[in-house]
Amino acid sequence: MLPLQQFRDFIEQQQLFTEGNRILLAVSGGKDSVLMLHLFKAIGVDVGVAHCNFNLRADEAQRDEHFVALLAGNLGLPFYVTHFETKKYAHQHKISTQMAARELRYTWFEEIRSAEGYDYIALAQHQNDAVETVLINLVRGTGISGLHGILPKRDKLIRPLLFLNRQEVNEIVAKNNIDFVEDSSNLSTHYTRNKLRLQVVPHLQEINPDLEKTFAENMARFAEIETFLNLEVQKLQARILNERADGVYIDLKEIAALNPQKLLLYELLKPFGFSENVVEEILGSLKALSGTHFFSSSHQAIINRSDLVIVKKDTAIVANQFIHPETACITFTDHEIAMAFSSEVKFDLDANKAFVNAGKLIYPLVLRNWQNGDKFIPLGMRNAKKVSDYFIDEKVPLHLKSTTPILVNGNGEIVWIVGMRQDNRYKLTPATKKVAIFELKIK
Amino acid sequence: MLPLQQFRDFIEQQQLFTEGNRILLAVSGGKDSVLMLHLFKAIGVDVGVAHCNFNLRADEAQRDEHFVALLAGNLGLPFYVTHFETKKYAHQHKISTQMAARELRYTWFEEIRSAEGYDYIALAQHQNDAVETVLINLVRGTGISGLHGILPKRDKLIRPLLFLNRQEVNEIVAKNNIDFVEDSSNLSTHYTRNKLRLQVVPHLQEINPDLEKTFAENMARFAEIETFLNLEVQKLQARILNERADGVYIDLKEIAALNPQKLLLYELLKPFGFSENVVEEILGSLKALSGTHFFSSSHQAIINRSDLVIVKKDTAIVANQFIHPETACITFTDHEIAMAFSSEVKFDLDANKAFVNAGKLIYPLVLRNWQNGDKFIPLGMRNAKKVSDYFIDEKVPLHLKSTTPILVNGNGEIVWIVGMRQDNRYKLTPATKKVAIFELKIK
Repeated sequence: MLPLQQFRDFIEQQQLFTEGNRILLAVSGGKDSVLMLHLFKAIGVDVGVAHCNFNLRADEAQRDEHFVALLAGNLGLPFYVTHFETKKYAHQHKISTQMAARELRYTWFEEIRSAEGYDYIALAQHQNDAVETVLINLVRGTGISGLHGILPKRDKLIRPLLFLNRQEVNEIVAKNNIDFVEDSSNLSTHYTRNKLRLQVVPHLQEINPDLEKTFAENMARFAEIETFLNLEVQKLQARILNERADGVYIDLKEIAALNPQKLLLYELLKPFGFSENVVEEILGSLKALSGTHFFSSSHQAIINRSDLVIVKKDTAIVANQFIHPETACITFTDHEIAMAFSSEVKFDLDANKAFVNAGKLIYPLVLRNWQNGDKFIPLGMRNAKKVSDYFIDEKVPLHLKSTTPILVNGNGEIVWIVGMRQDNRYKLTPATKKVAIFELKIK
Repeated sequence: MLPLQQFRDFIEQQQLFTEGNRILLAVSGGKDSVLMLHLFKAIGVDVGVAHCNFNLRADEAQRDEHFVALLAGNLGLPFYVTHFETKKYAHQHKISTQMAARELRYTWFEEIRSAEGYDYIALAQHQNDAVETVLINLVRGTGISGLHGILPKRDKLIRPLLFLNRQEVNEIVAKNNIDFVEDSSNLSTHYTRNKLRLQVVPHLQEINPDLEKTFAENMARFAEIETFLNLEVQKLQARILNERADGVYIDLKEIAALNPQKLLLYELLKPFGFSENVVEEILGSLKALSGTHFFSSSHQAIINRSDLVIVKKDTAIVANQFIHPETACITFTDHEIAMAFSSEVKFDLDANKAFVNAGKLIYPLVLRNWQNGDKFIPLGMRNAKKVSDYFIDEKVPLHLKSTTPILVNGNGEIVWIVGMRQDNRYKLTPATKKVAIFELKIK
């Protein structure tokens, strides 16, 4: 007797899918996934069977694949199989074999799902997998997001076996004489899970025989708290993150008013990849000097007067670019500078254009970022000025100091602070014969 | 060598107390509390020693008390001791011995603290106690509040040993030849803790050798999330709970708009003691008929038209009260009804007063709540009307239907719906000789 009513109830209660949906079942050939397959078949859902051969233990992997193919054939179901070079992929991407297998299978399942017109991918995880996941996360260190366990539904993935615990799966499989293989590709035979399953969970079950049910209730509570936190953080993001063309601004006063500070700043900055430690550093530096920098792998955060400004790392660095007479266009990040020549000596007052005495240019010119010690003579002035002082006078945000492109002559003199001010030495004069016109554009 | 700098750093970082504070140390005589005593003594804080004898294992308890008394004496510290009849207390209050010991000790520590002028009570729990507490809560079932572990500071309680784990305590005690007793009253030798300590935690430490540190970080995160949730729920309470004289009103539309619903309604109703299951029932009944009731041990919640109304159970029940001619005053909950007689036949139009033809009264009168089937003839009308219909016409909130007092004559006829409407049969007429005046007042 299969627990069909419970299965149907769980699907309905968790709104896993609706009538007429086609479901792609991930079947390793182990107890759990084979039981899932039989349950789906018994309630008459339109399903297909997908099997991954991870090539981790050659003979067993071959046997598993053969078993699942035969099972799908006997039941008259579409069968999809793929072979991964898991170890090679892990090596190439510098990740664990376990992580590699995980990435490979989820990517492939999604490919098959969308190519073959399935609505959802069903995975056969049960309540004990969820208990183990929570314990692993706790032991390795986690925030609230590590406590929801395994969600019954997330995007296109559904877990319709989460109404059963391992013991129940074992009993049902035994009572119904369901054939299965000892699953060689089962990722849950991983060291840590195995240790928890065999050495830890049994003791916890002595304290609470309903451990899986209790954990399922815990997880539902934590999932709600996670949802709540995410919703509130979204509201907060909408309120205090100001996306401008040159970066994301957060008023330092708003950061100081967050409560609790660490949690909320961490959550706010999560999309930019800042670690908890860096968030603590930022909080310890709210009164630091303007210009203090903090880094994540993808972004930098800079204290800029009364704001924390977050910019992508790649927009913060313009590699030196050389400009030759024949160069028509220099591109960098999402901008470009067009160069053209004219014998007509005239100019207009557009900060995005520079009209330069071409006769004074020494090639190659260089387009680069600000360097310590840079000086220039602002157009209309007589004396040299430090570029950094000029930036301060012009109230250029500090994070733009390192990203503002500067056009430099072959002799090292600055020609143009791009988009801001030309150098007086390169301006057009009555003696100018040929004009070089530089124009900054957004790509 | 005692880890005095770490001890000082932890006290400062967690702001446990400030210079000049006097600290009452809870010392069982076991390793942890004796180490705590030596640490405090070594950094020169003004401390006293408090010891509880729980009389649970007579000989050992005697030995422990003697040991701690001697230790305090040798160090020249004030010593406070008490003896509890723990088993008897547990039996009387129908709680576990463990719970009884806990209640008794915390109550007594606080008595000594305030009587003897100490600022804080210091308990010697360390990181492993915190790890075990979190695991116990998880295994038994918990929400977010079960995940902060043991807080370094809460009200007048401080835990200055939370910078150490059990192994570190053992090493420090051994290296410094610190004398201690195997603590007979140590509550942590309780079955569940013991099982976790000996059979579970060692396996988790094999997965993560820094388990205690990782858990401390987890707990700090969860404590922040708990704080955040509490702050947001407080804001929500201020916004959608309307406290009126007759109960707390929550607009059903506001409840329907909560997200996530279960978490937030549970947290909103927590002060009134409603369980998670009852909260689910309420959420399933938002469109139920007006009048649907839900109960906690202390309160009832009633769907009343467009609101959920919460009232204390004890205000919902007025026991029948008998009124004799000599009764001058009947009191119930926070009201009273005064009775007086007059031979002057006059009345005024005050709903809080009833002017009744005393000649028709049959003693004892009864003051009681509405009963199913109650009918009366409203003053000025000819025909009897169901009291429940009268309440509906008058838009009396449903939860007041069962709390509105009704004055009933000895023959069973209603004399007065108190504070609302008299019965026509008992009104004053030209033939009335004597008037009974009832007046509803707030105490």
